[in-house]
Amino acid sequence: MATAKAHAKWTGTLKEGAGSMSGASGHLNAPFTFATRFEGAAGGTNPEELIGAAQAGCFSMFLAAQLTNAGHPPTSIETSATVHLGAGPTITKIELQTVAVVPGVSAEVFNEKVDFSKKNCPVSKALASVPELTFSATLQ
Amino acid sequence: MATAKAHAKWTGTLKEGAGSMSGASGHLNAPFTFATRFEGAAGGTNPEELIGAAQAGCFSMFLAAQLTNAGHPPTSIETSATVHLGAGPTITKIELQTVAVVPGVSAEVFNEKVDFSKKNCPVSKALASVPELTFSATLQ
Repeated sequence: MATAKAHAKWTGTLKEGAGSMSGASGHLNAPFTFATRFEGAAGGTNPEELIGAAQAGCFSMFLAAQLTNAGHPPTSIETSATVHLGAGPTITKIELQTVAVVPGVSAEVFNEKVDFSKKNCPVSKALASVPELTFSATLQ
Repeated sequence: MATAKAHAKWTGTLKEGAGSMSGASGHLNAPFTFATRFEGAAGGTNPEELIGAAQAGCFSMFLAAQLTNAGHPPTSIETSATVHLGAGPTITKIELQTVAVVPGVSAEVFNEKVDFSKKNCPVSKALASVPELTFSATLQ
C-alpha cells in the first residue's frame, strides 16, 4: 500500500556521542543526544518526540476520515501528545489531548468516532504494547 | 525520567484536507496529506516516516550504549528503516538495516548486542505489536 523510509546515525558513546534522524521525504533531519533525550536539553529532538508526533498526526487524520464518513467533515482537529520515558528505559505512557471543531456533529457521534479512532488508527495499533495510552477529546 | 511533547493538526476531509506534525523541540515541523502518506507524493512527511526514524534512532543509540558497556565504543552506527503500511491501514512490517564501525569488537559480541538491542530498545518495545520487525546488521 505504501512504504516510508528513514535513516539514523549515531557516532561515539552513549553520553559523549551524538546522533541524527532523518526521513526520505526531506522534511525531517534533526540531531539528538543523550541530553536532548533524557535531560530535556535544547539543540535536538529525540525518538519519543517523533513517536508522539506520529501518534498525534495519525489519530487526527484517522478521526477526520471517520467524521467525514459519518457526514461531518471536520473544520479542524488538533492533538497534543506527551510521551513518557520511564525506567528501563521504557515508554510507559502516551497521553493525547484532542480539540476538534466539527460543525453539526453530536457529542455522541463525536465520542463514538474518537473511541473507534484511538483503537484503530495505524499508529495506535502499532503502539498497542505501550502500557498506558490515555485520550481526552473536546468538541468545541 | 523524561517527557517529550508533540502536536498535530488536521483540517478538512481525509483526501482534500491537510495536516502538520511538530515537536516541542522545534526540530520537527512538517506538513502531511493523504497523498504524502498513501501515494508517495512529495511535499510532506507521514506518521510512518517518523516511526521509522524513531525506531532507527533509538536502536542505533541503544546499540552504541551496549557496545560501549562491553568495552567497544563504536565509531559509527547507521540504521535505515523501511516502514510498510498495508491494508487496514495497518503497519504490517518494519525493516531495519544497520551498518556499524566498531573497532576491535568480535562478530560474536556484536551480534549478541544487536540481538539484545533489537528486543530491548525503548522504541522496539513500544512497537512490539507490529506483526513483523526484521533486522540485518553488518559489522564493517
